[in-house]
Amino acid sequence: MDAARGTIPADRIFTNASIFNPFTCTWDTGTLAVKNGIVLGIGDYTGTEVCDCSGKYIVPGLIDAHVHIESSLLTPAEYARLVVRHGTTTVIADPHEIANVAGATGIEYMLKARAHAAIDIRYMLPSCVPATPADVGGAVLDADDLRRFTGRPGVLGLGEMMNVPGVLAADPGIAEKISLMPIRDGHAPGLAGRDLNAYLLAGLQSDHECTTRAEAEEKLKKGMYIFIRDGSTEQNIEALIPVVTPATVSRCSFATDDCHADLLMEEGHIDRCIKKAIACGLAPELAIRMATLSAAERFGLADRGALVPGRRADLCIIDDPDRFEIQRVFRNGIEITPLPYSPQQPFPPTIRCPIPAPDAFRISGTGPARVIGLVPGQIVTESLRYDCSADEIPDRERDILKVAVCNRYRPAPLGLGLVHGFGFRDGAIAGSVSHDAHNIIAVGTSDALIHRAIESVIRAQGGMAAVLENEEMLLPLDCAGLMSTLPYQEVVDRLHALREVTKKMGGIENPFMYLSFLALTVIPALRVTDRGVFEGVAFRDVPLFIE
Amino acid sequence: MDAARGTIPADRIFTNASIFNPFTCTWDTGTLAVKNGIVLGIGDYTGTEVCDCSGKYIVPGLIDAHVHIESSLLTPAEYARLVVRHGTTTVIADPHEIANVAGATGIEYMLKARAHAAIDIRYMLPSCVPATPADVGGAVLDADDLRRFTGRPGVLGLGEMMNVPGVLAADPGIAEKISLMPIRDGHAPGLAGRDLNAYLLAGLQSDHECTTRAEAEEKLKKGMYIFIRDGSTEQNIEALIPVVTPATVSRCSFATDDCHADLLMEEGHIDRCIKKAIACGLAPELAIRMATLSAAERFGLADRGALVPGRRADLCIIDDPDRFEIQRVFRNGIEITPLPYSPQQPFPPTIRCPIPAPDAFRISGTGPARVIGLVPGQIVTESLRYDCSADEIPDRERDILKVAVCNRYRPAPLGLGLVHGFGFRDGAIAGSVSHDAHNIIAVGTSDALIHRAIESVIRAQGGMAAVLENEEMLLPLDCAGLMSTLPYQEVVDRLHALREVTKKMGGIENPFMYLSFLALTVIPALRVTDRGVFEGVAFRDVPLFIE
Repeated sequence: MDAARGTIPADRIFTNASIFNPFTCTWDTGTLAVKNGIVLGIGDYTGTEVCDCSGKYIVPGLIDAHVHIESSLLTPAEYARLVVRHGTTTVIADPHEIANVAGATGIEYMLKARAHAAIDIRYMLPSCVPATPADVGGAVLDADDLRRFTGRPGVLGLGEMMNVPGVLAADPGIAEKISLMPIRDGHAPGLAGRDLNAYLLAGLQSDHECTTRAEAEEKLKKGMYIFIRDGSTEQNIEALIPVVTPATVSRCSFATDDCHADLLMEEGHIDRCIKKAIACGLAPELAIRMATLSAAERFGLADRGALVPGRRADLCIIDDPDRFEIQRVFRNGIEITPLPYSPQQPFPPTIRCPIPAPDAFRISGTGPARVIGLVPGQIVTESLRYDCSADEIPDRERDILKVAVCNRYRPAPLGLGLVHGFGFRDGAIAGSVSHDAHNIIAVGTSDALIHRAIESVIRAQGGMAAVLENEEMLLPLDCAGLMSTLPYQEVVDRLHALREVTKKMGGIENPFMYLSFLALTVIPALRVTDRGVFEGVAFRDVPLFIE
Repeated sequence: MDAARGTIPADRIFTNASIFNPFTCTWDTGTLAVKNGIVLGIGDYTGTEVCDCSGKYIVPGLIDAHVHIESSLLTPAEYARLVVRHGTTTVIADPHEIANVAGATGIEYMLKARAHAAIDIRYMLPSCVPATPADVGGAVLDADDLRRFTGRPGVLGLGEMMNVPGVLAADPGIAEKISLMPIRDGHAPGLAGRDLNAYLLAGLQSDHECTTRAEAEEKLKKGMYIFIRDGSTEQNIEALIPVVTPATVSRCSFATDDCHADLLMEEGHIDRCIKKAIACGLAPELAIRMATLSAAERFGLADRGALVPGRRADLCIIDDPDRFEIQRVFRNGIEITPLPYSPQQPFPPTIRCPIPAPDAFRISGTGPARVIGLVPGQIVTESLRYDCSADEIPDRERDILKVAVCNRYRPAPLGLGLVHGFGFRDGAIAGSVSHDAHNIIAVGTSDALIHRAIESVIRAQGGMAAVLENEEMLLPLDCAGLMSTLPYQEVVDRLHALREVTKKMGGIENPFMYLSFLALTVIPALRVTDRGVFEGVAFRDVPLFIE
């Protein structure tokens, strides 16, 4: 209080900068003073340390409104160490993936990781574990399971409610989850009109799944907070940025949802979203407002999002608003210097299946078969039919490969299927990131290679493996089979190395991305699970060969 | 849920209207459907009742962000019955006045009154009872007294923190009050720069005391919610409306603070604020946003402020946005028809003093005397000096009248003083509304008339009395000496009648307004309390005659 009144010096002052004011979307000048990690204000202040910011701009620390940290393939600590360099000081994370693998234990792990993170991680409790009854992984979390976490430090609300049919049918278990906490994120791709009204009536408040301007406008008008997404697989900024105006900006934020470590390292995080939005014609001031105060307000975080008296001194020094290059980052008033890697705590084993027998990959049958068809750049698939004989797989001519799913939670027969579109001439890949049950999934040009790839993943307690006749590369994901305990630089290097190996297989780019969605039963049309082929439209298991 | 999806009919639909959307500050068209008091949404709906709104506009119910209901001179029920006609469906009220008179009992009374009110009344707990140690009325409320009310239905947060010096001095009792609840209204007239920073650092969040554009801009930029005020004594819309833009409107609301029943009845409530703002050049859409969603968001009332799925169907039908004439009002989906007056619960007696003896008004002394000087149109006073003799009062020539303050809470000697500026030729007025201790205060041209006026107020358990030789008019304020249990129409009639009587006295307009602030020790320069003359600058009791 004395420091705010100027009777004793501040810890640090920032002089000669233009300081972003998100309340007016303008720039203030003056000396910004900080003490004990808190902003004292802008005014006539002296400080123990002086940070001259002549010609620079200061903005509040950036906020990601919705992210699955697991998708970065990094542990929370490494994720934080990476994104803080890009100006991010708060993320709102939904530990949906690890909860599907390890239930409450997974959520506890993520909560515990907050203590050592270089950023403030707040969690939304995963509302859909499993995503559907056809996707049971390592856990089922009902409302009572989630209730144990309400009120815990770091828990903000209920994460994206993806079970739209359940919401619309007023499923009591879902209603109970929604009633747990007042802050509730939605997830309603394409939902419109009266069904959207009903979804909102149930109490969901936000959406990060809009892909068209009309969809975002309708949702915004109906009172939803809109998180405009830019992730590794979904990029919606260009389509949606026209909805952001001075009148609507308080209801719009950025989210990255799913972002791999390499994208984060090479192109940035929320700073990347701001740059993209500016490139799409949005005023920098509105883009910065989205990434700061708007996100803070949506989540009731009144202690951040603006550099005004009493709020956290989370801030970034940038070169200029249009270029938006992050130069220095301060969290709680202390500069983030390059942080050393800390060895990460191991996660209890989650891969509890034996290595499959070499002959476990055999299929038999002949005639018309159901073949999953990849769609370039999309996670939807096509349901194809090919006349084939089991003995003729792989069919390199027609690009039909075998795909295998190995239940990672218990000994069980493999689920086997056929897929068109990978285009591999030779090789196999396997991974333990496989939405949403996160079993081990593999595709390849021979049973032997598939077997080797799966074995490699199992031995590492999870990972992404690429196997050629004489070469093998593994990114171990030893933390729940989802995240690596390696330093982020090493993870990125191994992702590049994996890409080099898969390039030699021929075929599509980013095959691991397609692989990780092949088992996702909620998206049409044809999938493969640990039980075998699955028809997404009819929502049922079906035989590989049509009888 | 079924109704939202359109599978069963709504209770009521509003067809063919333009419906205000506060998220975009635009107008939507379509059929608005309501069921069980909740908005289902806009869409293709059928309803049991159809309200054709061709050519009309619908806006959400209006919200007053800061009001002292007691200042209306009406009980909460009568206040609600009056303002709901003007489109108000929610008020955020601070029962500061009744708490100064009756402490926790007063707050309980106001909370109880919520049940029968035609609008939703939410309370901010009065933070400054008494306003200063020099102003002790019927109660002292410390943090523990307030804590009993936290979490009670209808209690939203901590009311305007007026003790700016105490906040800046980090007074522990004040800090404890601030820490009670996360929503805290401020009150910091003229505070700026580093002192304002310190005030905000303490945790205050809003201000309704701005009188200049520069003051409002500074406070807005520093993160305060700005309530632009239009009351019986303070009118700030014209000066402040330029700060409201599409970028800032989410942080700006309207407040009436103190509004007498006659102004409310004759010129309206928040609808009056909107009209005035439009007349000052503000776009109607921004003015309506202020009065609806912005106020709801400031107080975390996520269930109102917009006509979107899941929110309360509090709404007004208006003729057009520019004229903003309220035509019909619905609360929780039900139309407000002219409501009958219900006899009001009496309040326990708060006037516990005897009627003063006729000779209790005598003053003695001669020489230079301290005389309170009224300032037209202001509540500040001047500290004047006149050479006079006690025997020569009233001095009509120099307009020096006697003023008497009678402690209403216990038998005690009268406080006596002299005042210049009322200009009465003949007559006396007395009132039990006397900020903030609310003792009985009277001024008049003879001891006998003053005595009659005070007697009239005491016999009625509070009121406003105007007494001439052969005429007398009383507005009884039997509810804590602040509010009348009469119907609002009757209260307004008596206010008019009082004005007729005071006109006959000659002198200034609205003498009761000046009278009610004569004892307010926090405002300079000279005051009179139940102890006698009080110097506001030195903040101490002083003798009437300078020795």
